[in-house]
Amino acid sequence: MFNAIVSADTLRTALDSVSVLVEECRLHLNEEGLAVRAVDPANVGMVDLTLAAEAFESYEADGGVIGVNLSRLEDIAGMADSGGLVHMELDEETRKLHISLDGLEYTLALIDPDSIRQEPDIPDLDLPARVVVEGRDINRAVKAADMVSDHIALGVREEENVFYVEAEGDTDDVHLELEEEDLIDLQAGPARSLFSLDYLKDMNRAIPSNGEVAVDLGEEFPTKMHFEVAEGEGEVTYMLAPRIQSS
Amino acid sequence: MFNAIVSADTLRTALDSVSVLVEECRLHLNEEGLAVRAVDPANVGMVDLTLAAEAFESYEADGGVIGVNLSRLEDIAGMADSGGLVHMELDEETRKLHISLDGLEYTLALIDPDSIRQEPDIPDLDLPARVVVEGRDINRAVKAADMVSDHIALGVREEENVFYVEAEGDTDDVHLELEEEDLIDLQAGPARSLFSLDYLKDMNRAIPSNGEVAVDLGEEFPTKMHFEVAEGEGEVTYMLAPRIQSS
Amino acid sequence: MFNAIVSADTLRTALDSVSVLVEECRLHLNEEGLAVRAVDPANVGMVDLTLAAEAFESYEADGGVIGVNLSRLEDIAGMADSGGLVHMELDEETRKLHISLDGLEYTLALIDPDSIRQEPDIPDLDLPARVVVEGRDINRAVKAADMVSDHIALGVREEENVFYVEAEGDTDDVHLELEEEDLIDLQAGPARSLFSLDYLKDMNRAIPSNGEVAVDLGEEFPTKMHFEVAEGEGEVTYMLAPRIQSS
Repeated sequence: MFNAIVSADTLRTALDSVSVLVEECRLHLNEEGLAVRAVDPANVGMVDLTLAAEAFESYEADGGVIGVNLSRLEDIAGMADSGGLVHMELDEETRKLHISLDGLEYTLALIDPDSIRQEPDIPDLDLPARVVVEGRDINRAVKAADMVSDHIALGVREEENVFYVEAEGDTDDVHLELEEEDLIDLQAGPARSLFSLDYLKDMNRAIPSNGEVAVDLGEEFPTKMHFEVAEGEGEVTYMLAPRIQSS
Repeated sequence: MFNAIVSADTLRTALDSVSVLVEECRLHLNEEGLAVRAVDPANVGMVDLTLAAEAFESYEADGGVIGVNLSRLEDIAGMADSGGLVHMELDEETRKLHISLDGLEYTLALIDPDSIRQEPDIPDLDLPARVVVEGRDINRAVKAADMVSDHIALGVREEENVFYVEAEGDTDDVHLELEEEDLIDLQAGPARSLFSLDYLKDMNRAIPSNGEVAVDLGEEFPTKMHFEVAEGEGEVTYMLAPRIQSS
Repeated sequence: MFNAIVSADTLRTALDSVSVLVEECRLHLNEEGLAVRAVDPANVGMVDLTLAAEAFESYEADGGVIGVNLSRLEDIAGMADSGGLVHMELDEETRKLHISLDGLEYTLALIDPDSIRQEPDIPDLDLPARVVVEGRDINRAVKAADMVSDHIALGVREEENVFYVEAEGDTDDVHLELEEEDLIDLQAGPARSLFSLDYLKDMNRAIPSNGEVAVDLGEEFPTKMHFEVAEGEGEVTYMLAPRIQSS
């Protein structure tokens, strides 16, 4: 059983955070809210999304799982006026999702959840450094690095309490330093890892530029990036595997 | 003889309604105004445009016919500032149209009207149902249907006084219902026909979203869509042939 | 030695005027300001840019020459916020340019100036006619001509004190006349030359639409177009060779 009403903006924002990594996913329709966990086909990036029942105008569910095509669902949500509401109701018999918005009824065929890749276990890493920055700083770092390279190094200089971003191209280099006063929070620790810019660019598209992002880092370890959506009623965690340092 | 001054916006709007169907057309320069009738190469969609002399700042004509390339004429009108005026004068000897706007003089070579396809007769159908809606509702219906199918069904449920739009895709369906209170006017009658979405998308581009559109429908019959342009001094009627119902 | 701070907007505007013609150029870092002179690979268009030390927030240089990739430098300047400042400092040892903006450090590899094409001599032509117009008039003329042809004629009708622009296509013609009251200034003289529209379109992109442009013309002679950037602290001169008149 699933019957929920949510603002189109909230639905779009939540789905976007997953669709940057995968095309199809399983929605877990838990009593306390909606949850998605997915890993990209290359096993490099993972996403963990939860959207609490409180993020919805109304929400009823009893723990089912449905498989959806994300871009299809995003297109439908995109038909709503800004501020419009989307009503979703699962037809258990036909296994279709009835979606209505502004007088429009859309019947979405679901995907057999068993045909969608198994959810990953997101490892419980104990990363030594945490940096909390504004989303716009991630955005700037990614754009700058993209001018010179396909990779980006994120690190912390413990003694100086500095979070840094580096990208080395064939001829040019980019370097961005954020000192303690530029950061919302910093837990210094030994941290420097290299990441694929392609993945970070995709994740960056879902990071709200005017929100806080907590970035957990280690030495040649995955990074975890955590931020809130839906006015705090939704949470997104990305995990991104490191690239082997080339030098 | 043809010598007229018209606002660039009015000229563009009028030409757009024809250029969504054909590239070249004959302009009938009648004493009481300008008239165009055209059918697309596949004989599926027709347009009938009249722009009364009152839609012009000044207008003089004596019943001639000229052939024009519509996108060329639209490009020229597009050079004018918003609110600018376009002066058109026919040179009978050279068979060229002199167009001036904001100090710019453009000499447009005309096309031999005999080389342009004959105007269609727009059949005088007696369609049993008429729905008057806002242009934006046509727009929503077309966009929604386009998510799932190449075809769109328009119909009326007589007993409920409901205008409905349906599109059935391979897996998903879209359904939009407008009840009497959502409609500007409704003359209920037996009506349901299937149309090509490609044509309706083109026609929709010329329908003003904040204006009224009268849609005449029958059972597996063509639809006629009628709306005003140029503050009521211009009228556009589209006729669109139905597709054979597949079921 | 080169150490300068300049607003990102000024830097972008200045570089744009050169990058429409060439991809790489030599920057002359003179004591009194920055200077660039370049000719396009086909020897048809030349640019002469000077940006006085007064256009910078701070400026120190002693006459060196560096080779730069313009689009790279423009991308970097594009990372700055509007109104942001760009700090450039030459590392004499590594022959790299250190660029910092908003906490971002970019190390730009320079190009060996000897590998960049020699600066042209801009001939000291004594052109008989000068027209001073607003940039937006050049823009209109170029757009209109582009509808019908690949070439554009610029000329002056001495007896009437009229500056005219003409383009003749295979079927259509465009003609724009600016009389004395439409012009900022006019020194009438015998002038009519035909130019490649491709070049003029590129140059037009760098001409500020709300600024003055002085256009010097002769009979089948090159044209010189001169305008100011950076609130008068920068000057750009384009020279464009004529096409042979086809008629």
